[in-house]
This record gives sequence, C-alpha cells and structure tokens, in this order.
Amino acid sequence: MLVPLAEGFEEIEAMSIIDILRRAGATVIAAGLDEGPVKGRSDVVMVPDCTLDRALAENEFDMIVLPGGMPASASLRDDPRVIETLVKMRGAGKTVAAICAAPIALDRAGILDGEQFTSYPGMAPDLPKDGYRHDRVVISGKLLTSRGPGTALEFAVELVRALYGDPAARQVADEVLAQDIGQAN
Amino acid sequence: MLVPLAEGFEEIEAMSIIDILRRAGATVIAAGLDEGPVKGRSDVVMVPDCTLDRALAENEFDMIVLPGGMPASASLRDDPRVIETLVKMRGAGKTVAAICAAPIALDRAGILDGEQFTSYPGMAPDLPKDGYRHDRVVISGKLLTSRGPGTALEFAVELVRALYGDPAARQVADEVLAQDIGQAN
Repeated sequence: MLVPLAEGFEEIEAMSIIDILRRAGATVIAAGLDEGPVKGRSDVVMVPDCTLDRALAENEFDMIVLPGGMPASASLRDDPRVIETLVKMRGAGKTVAAICAAPIALDRAGILDGEQFTSYPGMAPDLPKDGYRHDRVVISGKLLTSRGPGTALEFAVELVRALYGDPAARQVADEVLAQDIGQAN
Repeated sequence: MLVPLAEGFEEIEAMSIIDILRRAGATVIAAGLDEGPVKGRSDVVMVPDCTLDRALAENEFDMIVLPGGMPASASLRDDPRVIETLVKMRGAGKTVAAICAAPIALDRAGILDGEQFTSYPGMAPDLPKDGYRHDRVVISGKLLTSRGPGTALEFAVELVRALYGDPAARQVADEVLAQDIGQAN
C-alpha cells in the first residue's frame, strides 16, 4: 500500500492510516515526494520509508491512500507522478482512497466523476457537487473517502475491511479500541 | 507541554496528543529519551523536537503527557528522569496524563495511589486494582488517563479542556471533526 507524504500532511490522518494498516499486516510504504524528512501541518517531522520515485520504481501497489492536510493535499494534486499513479491504479481496478483535503487530488485525476465521495467540509466548494456526501466515510466501490482527523481511525478500519475483509477489520478495531467507531457505513 | 518519546511509542496516540494540543495553541515539546530519531511501534520514524535532557534543562512545563505503546511505556517507567519529572510536576500541582500502557509509569511514580484512572485494558493486571476504571477517558483532578489509539483523540481534546477550558476544547474538536467523540465524560 502506498501513502505519499508531502509537506504539511495531517499527522493524525497519516498515522491512523499507516499504523492501522500495518497492524492488519499490510506492507505500507510511506513515500516522501522528495528526499529527506517531511514536516506535517502541526510541525511533526517524519522520516518517510523512501522517496516516491523509488517506491514507484520498486513496487506494485494494491492500494493508494492520500492523507490530507495543507499544503500537502495541493502538492499531491499538483504532482504529475501522483496523478499518473492514481489514474493508472484506478484503471487497473486497484483501491484508491483519500481523506480530508486530499480528494482534490482524486478530482484532478478524474476519479470522482460519477462516484459518491466526501472530504473535509471546508473543501467541498473545491470539489464537484454531484456525488458529494456528508458522511464520515464514503465507500463507492473501490473508491474510499473520508472527512478529517476525527474520522481517520474509522477510515483506516474501512481500508482494512476493503483489503482483507470484515473479520480482519473487526480484529484491528478491537485491538485499538475503535470497535464503536469502526462501523461507519 | 512535554511529551516524552521512547522507542515503540504508539503513533496514533502521540500524534493525537501533539497535533491537537498544537492546534489549540499549546507549546508542545516532543522530546526523545536519547539523541536522534525515534521509531514507533508501527515503524514510523519521527524526529523529536529535542532530547529529554535539553527539554528539561530549558523549559518549565505546565503539563506532561505520556503516549503509550510498547516497549515505549516500559522505557518511560524505567527512566529515572521521567519518574523524577512526574513526581516533581505532580508535587507542584501540574497536570499529569498518560494513555494506553503508559499509566505504568504513573504507577511507578506513585501518582495513581488514591486516584481514579484507566489504561489499555490488557495492562490492567499490571496496575493497582483500587481506582481502576473502564472508561475511555478518566479525569481525576489534575490526573488524566485514557485507554488506547481509539480513545486518543477524545483524550487529547480533554487535555485541551484541562489546559484552556471548554470553549477551546469545543473549537478544536469542531476543527478536527471530533465533535461527537470529544465529550467523553
């Protein structure tokens, strides 16, 4: 699973995705857009596993998940490698997901057309009106979207459910005490 | 506010504390027990703001918060600087808090005696029976404890409430879409 990290990423969202998916047994590669550490929107500095270039050169991914935060989400949207990867993975029937402001990158890749999706409420004006939903996690086939830090944990549990099925999702939700918030939809 | 980071810290818990408190305007210093980056329990590598030695030498803190995770929580419990700081801050009437497995460090510092508290459910056998509660966040005067990654966000919102009052807590809970999980007790 690929998690691209850009300057200004939302820390709770990125950690919820990476931590929960790794707990569920996924191989998660957190890849920086450039070399070196990446600073989050609340100034937490994280050392990515590798660069996006190396991640893309050396792996086939079954899922790509975009954490939110600003300006990270705009940087993901404006990075041709991210858009190309989204288009390619979507075309190959892989799972594509984004939370908070990051659905703007899905929109740039043309992935929201005809789908149901959500985002951080404040980002709604930057996204198509058609298909926009005000739910905490929206699952539209192989497209998963969510709203923000407060919905990140249940979003991550839904990613586990999409990859590994319901028992695995329930198991990780139990382990992290997210039982009562892991049944979003 | 001081957040000591040891190898094996729980990433969601650490980020929830740091991110939410910084959003609320707190000066948060995430301090590594030793020099250099610190790896979390799910292998996320974080660069602390400074070492614990430097943090303690250069600052007066109004609150100390211990993230959980293993072996991080045992390392915090076994670090004389952490125990001394807990005892000193507690004696000075400062706010002391821990989540998940980290209440074992509070216990070592003698802070749980006569108080109400909680922890990760699996850690209950390692903690005093008297005062143990099975609630998501337990507020016992200036002692706050919580259970795990799934309760970290509401724990962080309660830390904001303890430091800055209810309007500030509500504001940050709204901002991160944690409104419905920020009213723990």
